Amino acid sequence: MPELNKIEVCFTPELFKFHENPEAVVVVSDILRATTAICTAFENGVQKLIPIAEIQEARSYKDKGFMVAAERDGKVLDFADFGNSPFNFTPERVSGKTIVYSTTNGTQAIQLARNCFKVAIGAFINIIALSEWLVSVNRDVIVLCAGWKGKFNLEDSLFAGALAHRLLDHAAYYTDCDSTHAAMDLWELASENPLGYIEKAAQRDRLRKLGLDDVLAYCFTENITRVIPVFQDHFLISLPEHGDESSQKLP
Amino acid sequence: MPELNKIEVCFTPELFKFHENPEAVVVVSDILRATTAICTAFENGVQKLIPIAEIQEARSYKDKGFMVAAERDGKVLDFADFGNSPFNFTPERVSGKTIVYSTTNGTQAIQLARNCFKVAIGAFINIIALSEWLVSVNRDVIVLCAGWKGKFNLEDSLFAGALAHRLLDHAAYYTDCDSTHAAMDLWELASENPLGYIEKAAQRDRLRKLGLDDVLAYCFTENITRVIPVFQDHFLISLPEHGDESSQKLP
Repeated sequence: MPELNKIEVCFTPELFKFHENPEAVVVVSDILRATTAICTAFENGVQKLIPIAEIQEARSYKDKGFMVAAERDGKVLDFADFGNSPFNFTPERVSGKTIVYSTTNGTQAIQLARNCFKVAIGAFINIIALSEWLVSVNRDVIVLCAGWKGKFNLEDSLFAGALAHRLLDHAAYYTDCDSTHAAMDLWELASENPLGYIEKAAQRDRLRKLGLDDVLAYCFTENITRVIPVFQDHFLISLPEHGDESSQKLP
Repeated sequence: MPELNKIEVCFTPELFKFHENPEAVVVVSDILRATTAICTAFENGVQKLIPIAEIQEARSYKDKGFMVAAERDGKVLDFADFGNSPFNFTPERVSGKTIVYSTTNGTQAIQLARNCFKVAIGAFINIIALSEWLVSVNRDVIVLCAGWKGKFNLEDSLFAGALAHRLLDHAAYYTDCDSTHAAMDLWELASENPLGYIEKAAQRDRLRKLGLDDVLAYCFTENITRVIPVFQDHFLISLPEHGDESSQKLP
């Protein structure tokens, strides 16, 4: 009988050390809005993203002539070309480009997971392609929620629950992880009307106050894109659509 | 209009630094089994508990002649008089005594919160008296889940949700904290049949394997006791039943 793959959900980067598993694929989730924006950028033809955790480093890339998308607390940084809305990453702007990207929570989470087997970018907009790819990779999965400044948040946890549900429908997976059970239960409560459910989330309120909540419906729509962004050699790139080689470490 | 008190839920001690608020009352929750055992000990007449995080320090108390209750991973430590089951703390054994107490997760959480306004011990068995007392104290509340070795767990989070529900029924409280919303939603799912819900929890499985699951029904029964243990001057003591002075720092 083949060995089953384990699913764990890590509710915030601060807890990642308790879940770390170098053999696992880590799926980073920052639904409002970083990972949704990253998937959108690749859907619209960006060639590479350079995820940068520190503001100063992002600024120095700008000084070198790179296009920079960077925000903190929802606001575009003064030196950046644009911020964190998925709607910024239009084909006209990003197609064929290499763009530096820095956000409040998401880019830190990507850096944190870089020593695991692979780091992939998850969002509702690529959840179907992502779950199919994870099944083909056939390894343990950790869903790493970016959270908000170290704390738990609802939107990333809902995504974690939705993804865990999809994988556990497949016979190759199991979980004995309390946070995975909790995330799946929250998703069951929310799945009929995620936009209604998320009304109580702190980040939903922050985006409303900043006038940035036009992205809500988009961020909770499943299957807008088939792209699977992965972190490799300091860059985010998009996996080729047919990932037959995906059970190998990419060259 | 009076200022409202804020409720936050902290899912594990590792995240406490993001929730810390020196003005708040912190309620520590380690339902299976430390905080349930502590409430039982006071219900059965223990005079003081000395919560000790480190095993070596607990051992040195034993060498000095103290009665010691100490376990790790559910197992009684070799030098201890008994372990962590609430059923160990019988009136015959504990009444009038001072007992040293050390457990896998609970005692560490108590120490962590000691600089806040007050640290109280919460369990389903004292939830009604506790929520009434919290309302009388009229301050912000942080429910600190002891978790399991740094990770989120279901049973402590259910308690956090149950307590938050009770407080939010009272007009003096509000929350804008995603983990509080999540805990309350999980409690709504579980409240009709907590023992059924908790079947999937990792700690429920650990206790079953160790033959220690005789305490399950007891640990999820509300209102067995009116005691409110609090941490004060390195000891856990029980508040007097009528806490009119409870909005003051105790002498």
